[in-house]
Amino acid sequence: MTATLATTASTGTALRPLFAPRGIAVIGASRNPGKLGAALARSLEGYAAAGGRLALVNGRDETMYRSVAEAAKDGPVDLAMICVPAPACPGVLAEAAEAGVGAAIISGGGFAEAGGPGVEYQRELENVVAASGIRLLGPNTSGFLAPHAGVTASFVPGVARVRPGRVAVVAASGGVNHALAFLLTDAGHGVSLAVGLGNGVDVTAPDVLDHLADDPHTTAVALHIESVADGPRLVESVRRLTARRPVVALVVGRHDVGAFAASHTGALATSWRTTRAALAQAGAVVVDDERELVDAVGALSVTRARPCADPGVGVVTAQAGPGLLLLDDLRGRKAPVPELTDVSLRRLSELLPPLTYQRNPVDTGRPGPELAQVLSTVGADPGVDAVAAYALYEPDAVDVVDAAVQGRADGVPMVMGLGGSGEEVTAARRALLDAGIAVAADPRGVAAATGALLADARARARDTVPARASGVPAGITGSHDEDQAKALLGRLGVTTPPRRACDDRAAAHAALAELGGPVAVKLLDATVLHKTEAGGVHLGIRTPAELDAALDALEANGFRRWLVEAMAPSGVDLVVGARRDPVFGPVVLLGLGGTTAEALADVSIRLAPLTPEEAAVMPSELAGHALLNGWRGGPVLDSGELGRLVATLGDLLLANPSLAEVEVNPLRLTAQGGLVALDAVILTKETDDAQPDL
Amino acid sequence: MTATLATTASTGTALRPLFAPRGIAVIGASRNPGKLGAALARSLEGYAAAGGRLALVNGRDETMYRSVAEAAKDGPVDLAMICVPAPACPGVLAEAAEAGVGAAIISGGGFAEAGGPGVEYQRELENVVAASGIRLLGPNTSGFLAPHAGVTASFVPGVARVRPGRVAVVAASGGVNHALAFLLTDAGHGVSLAVGLGNGVDVTAPDVLDHLADDPHTTAVALHIESVADGPRLVESVRRLTARRPVVALVVGRHDVGAFAASHTGALATSWRTTRAALAQAGAVVVDDERELVDAVGALSVTRARPCADPGVGVVTAQAGPGLLLLDDLRGRKAPVPELTDVSLRRLSELLPPLTYQRNPVDTGRPGPELAQVLSTVGADPGVDAVAAYALYEPDAVDVVDAAVQGRADGVPMVMGLGGSGEEVTAARRALLDAGIAVAADPRGVAAATGALLADARARARDTVPARASGVPAGITGSHDEDQAKALLGRLGVTTPPRRACDDRAAAHAALAELGGPVAVKLLDATVLHKTEAGGVHLGIRTPAELDAALDALEANGFRRWLVEAMAPSGVDLVVGARRDPVFGPVVLLGLGGTTAEALADVSIRLAPLTPEEAAVMPSELAGHALLNGWRGGPVLDSGELGRLVATLGDLLLANPSLAEVEVNPLRLTAQGGLVALDAVILTKETDDAQPDL
Repeated sequence: MTATLATTASTGTALRPLFAPRGIAVIGASRNPGKLGAALARSLEGYAAAGGRLALVNGRDETMYRSVAEAAKDGPVDLAMICVPAPACPGVLAEAAEAGVGAAIISGGGFAEAGGPGVEYQRELENVVAASGIRLLGPNTSGFLAPHAGVTASFVPGVARVRPGRVAVVAASGGVNHALAFLLTDAGHGVSLAVGLGNGVDVTAPDVLDHLADDPHTTAVALHIESVADGPRLVESVRRLTARRPVVALVVGRHDVGAFAASHTGALATSWRTTRAALAQAGAVVVDDERELVDAVGALSVTRARPCADPGVGVVTAQAGPGLLLLDDLRGRKAPVPELTDVSLRRLSELLPPLTYQRNPVDTGRPGPELAQVLSTVGADPGVDAVAAYALYEPDAVDVVDAAVQGRADGVPMVMGLGGSGEEVTAARRALLDAGIAVAADPRGVAAATGALLADARARARDTVPARASGVPAGITGSHDEDQAKALLGRLGVTTPPRRACDDRAAAHAALAELGGPVAVKLLDATVLHKTEAGGVHLGIRTPAELDAALDALEANGFRRWLVEAMAPSGVDLVVGARRDPVFGPVVLLGLGGTTAEALADVSIRLAPLTPEEAAVMPSELAGHALLNGWRGGPVLDSGELGRLVATLGDLLLANPSLAEVEVNPLRLTAQGGLVALDAVILTKETDDAQPDL
Repeated sequence: MTATLATTASTGTALRPLFAPRGIAVIGASRNPGKLGAALARSLEGYAAAGGRLALVNGRDETMYRSVAEAAKDGPVDLAMICVPAPACPGVLAEAAEAGVGAAIISGGGFAEAGGPGVEYQRELENVVAASGIRLLGPNTSGFLAPHAGVTASFVPGVARVRPGRVAVVAASGGVNHALAFLLTDAGHGVSLAVGLGNGVDVTAPDVLDHLADDPHTTAVALHIESVADGPRLVESVRRLTARRPVVALVVGRHDVGAFAASHTGALATSWRTTRAALAQAGAVVVDDERELVDAVGALSVTRARPCADPGVGVVTAQAGPGLLLLDDLRGRKAPVPELTDVSLRRLSELLPPLTYQRNPVDTGRPGPELAQVLSTVGADPGVDAVAAYALYEPDAVDVVDAAVQGRADGVPMVMGLGGSGEEVTAARRALLDAGIAVAADPRGVAAATGALLADARARARDTVPARASGVPAGITGSHDEDQAKALLGRLGVTTPPRRACDDRAAAHAALAELGGPVAVKLLDATVLHKTEAGGVHLGIRTPAELDAALDALEANGFRRWLVEAMAPSGVDLVVGARRDPVFGPVVLLGLGGTTAEALADVSIRLAPLTPEEAAVMPSELAGHALLNGWRGGPVLDSGELGRLVATLGDLLLANPSLAEVEVNPLRLTAQGGLVALDAVILTKETDDAQPDL
């Protein structure tokens, strides 16, 4: 941990010239107000007015410095803002580096995202960065805002309106960076630092995340991801940062947006599911849209729940209707809203009139001075780890700010939804934020903020740096037929049905006699991956005659080695596997069997290695989770057993560099025998080479 | 249609004493500022100041009228606001009616929602209403706001801040009514009328909806539903209203909120799915939460798309990153974003620099004066029925309000997302709204508003009052075994496998010989609904020996009549049915077969009767829809064939009052034979009586 922090600190320092410059040169500054250089200079007027050194550079305007070198002679220039056309950028960047400038921003486009010669310009920028060590933000970004330092390094008008605050924004896109900064301002939060990365030639999300671990102004980080170049590095940075500050991540690309995304950044969109899973596993709170991002990061910037594996919510509402919307929304987020203890209920019955609902949600009716005690009673309930409240702003009934502040239970965060309009309400919301109480304007905002507090509490309760499990076999190479794959699973402790590999009819008949019917008879050939489609599977074989008929059919299809296997009892089929993601490396996957689950892409993903405890959480993430929980009298999953199996598959991939993929499909959940692997495929790099059509 | 409008008009008039009173009496007015009566009187100060007659009534305060009768002698009293404890309310209501008051509001609680004696108080209110004809809003509601008429009949402070606007709110709950009114105000819309219904003893949602059809101030209606007492009446009112004004509906209770909901209104929560389906079918746009409600109704209050069965969206963005969020969100809503025509692309390539993405989304790069022409080019594309745009507010680059107004294509609505903060941005958004352009502050808001415009366009393209199909058999009674049920389906044109009902072994063997193997052999008994669970189904029978074994097993279970039926080819299984919903009456249902789909409750619902065209839309609503569209080389659904079948099942239920339910499960989609009914259950009321465990 010490080494990690040291690394963070040194990386943090590395971006000071960029985010806390002692002097800024605008290269390509312009007197023409419509030009980018003019807009940038205007945005920096506040910086100059506050005593920052602003040097305007334009070789063709004699009222300005002729070159960055000249500007640097007169005083410190830490940051060069380069506003020249793309072909000229590499040269100007080199000049700046030569002049001792530590960091640069290139806002303009026309690089890799545009294709053509832009690709080469971008490569030249990379070369300058590599040769000189200058730090470069962009190209193709509208810049960054550091309101505490008075630096608005952006050409977007109105950015001076972005309030200094506690939330940092790290956005793939300059446009999203600004959009979020404005939304955070309007929600009463403001920003500590807001960075749009653009093409990310040098400074990428991990760099900024590392910088933020030490930023004294930042208490929570909003992360917007369009694509990931280096998965493990991103994960490592998020993991380091979440140990110190909450991170809320929005990943774009749930649906098919690939063509447009490529035009935007020149990079392919990463896998949405895997990226979200990786970020969540690293401790980030993952959200679905930019509104929930603002709700979540705004809440986490003022308060956090204690680490807790299964936190519960106490709901307090002054109006039943909005409380019902809130409860419905919380249930949709699978947020537990537990029954309160008898002690709490007794106390509430003393505080509230008898007509109100008090079991959680607690409906106060029109609230009065007792609201503070109601809130503290609910917050003190042992099942409650966060309080989600809603009230219309009714100052003639109760001072809601005072009630919330007084009613806060120790260590239990509160989200207060305050319905109303106008300056008084805005001021009350701001007062709540300043007191460390998260706020929202509507029930959905309360639910989103509460959901984020719970997700953060759960993430903090997990061990984010799992040890690698021992005891998995290493050195696995070569191809594996089903029998060999199942033998390997057996060594890992996975149950497989009794089976016999058979090279001739006599062996097959002996196997049937030994196993008893019914049996499955399958082709045995490591090069055939889709046995059913190849006509290689016969089920429910009971008699020697049926066996012969099945073997005839298999032979007719050219299959002369067979697996004779006891039929498994009925149950619920799962699919588990481990494979190598091109961006993030080894991952494990869990889904339900069958085409419906497949069509719905109902799958839970984790990076490997992971602990069995972490893997045991995966089934609860499946939309069809109810099927594993005794659906219609069916079997109940032992998630511990499944977690061990899934974690082991991940370990297997890690211990065996030549292993490409392991898939158990189906893995059947049975009533008596627990989990049974009915089929298994193991692909090594050799198999891959032999299977070009994979 | 004439009759319908006449009814509407007369119902509209009926609520004028309530919503446009010539005089208001506050009964139980108080000088104590903490009392409800005092708060109400304060809220009405604006009404009095504007010249409305406000009479304060309190029998124990000699500065006020002693009774409502006394107040009514001095001048008009159309509306009585009754602020006395629940037990006194029925008497006061009767007095008001006696004094000639046309309408009353009871805000307080303590009625059916509280149980105990409250149930009786509520019944007494019902009796007074029935005997006198006085219209009653509430009890248990915070009232209503009619800002255009200056009436703020609510005890919530700050309601005077709610701006007069074009959106009407009809909310089950007074709290939600106020919450929405504030949100609509903050979003720049304001309200025309905002009503919280509370317990709905007399005035219910249909009454207010009927009133709004003629309200000149209202251009769109937000409807919040917690429970439905009279489904057909609600549907009829929504259908009538949507012919004149768009309606956006939010239904509470997707998740388990039953206990709290019951405490709130004293009514059981209605079925979330069926209620949403019914409202959508009646022409309403259905949304998921209160934020989307505000986005949707705000957009529809200023603009509507033309009726269109399959409308497409043109996306224009000035920043690629927010545009990507917008596109991703639109895709999640299944909003078509079509490729633009060559003509449009050529025009765009003349307007925009070559580096930008122009294929839809159209990325303008930093926009300039060409923005108007870009918008109009996209809007004029034949595949585009609505334009969804996003831009950061950059007045030094382009006047976005002017560009949007100039760039509007005739008859094609536009949603403009405007990112930014501060008064200038707020003013620009308001100017857009006033020009009939929907606005949002973020990409999600643009997507939600656009989704609402599309849903409204699709609803308007449908025939909302379907004719009842002719040709279905009537007079169906008695019990039906599988053979009889399939015979009935055959008469309706549904394909069923060749089959023979067999009373003895000779008949069964003859059937096997005739049909050829493999066959299914099933018990034939109208009283057994779950044949598989009863051990009554044997599949894949090929030989006389196998048949005898199956018949032995069936006989051993006591089944002596059998159905011998040809096995159907493989395919994708669906479930279709028609049944009677306790609130809405006959409904049809469609889902995918299998336990996964069942566990996910992936089902599409419609009220019957419905047209085959309407029913043909249902498969597209299933989450697993891809399975019906040639998934992995499988069969492709003819949605027209399915639509006819589903509509016919609905007609059958309507034509046969004694029919309780028809279910075809599975209905198999096959590659060669289209849809084949593999099993069918028909339940009549007689069957119901014979099956108490249903």
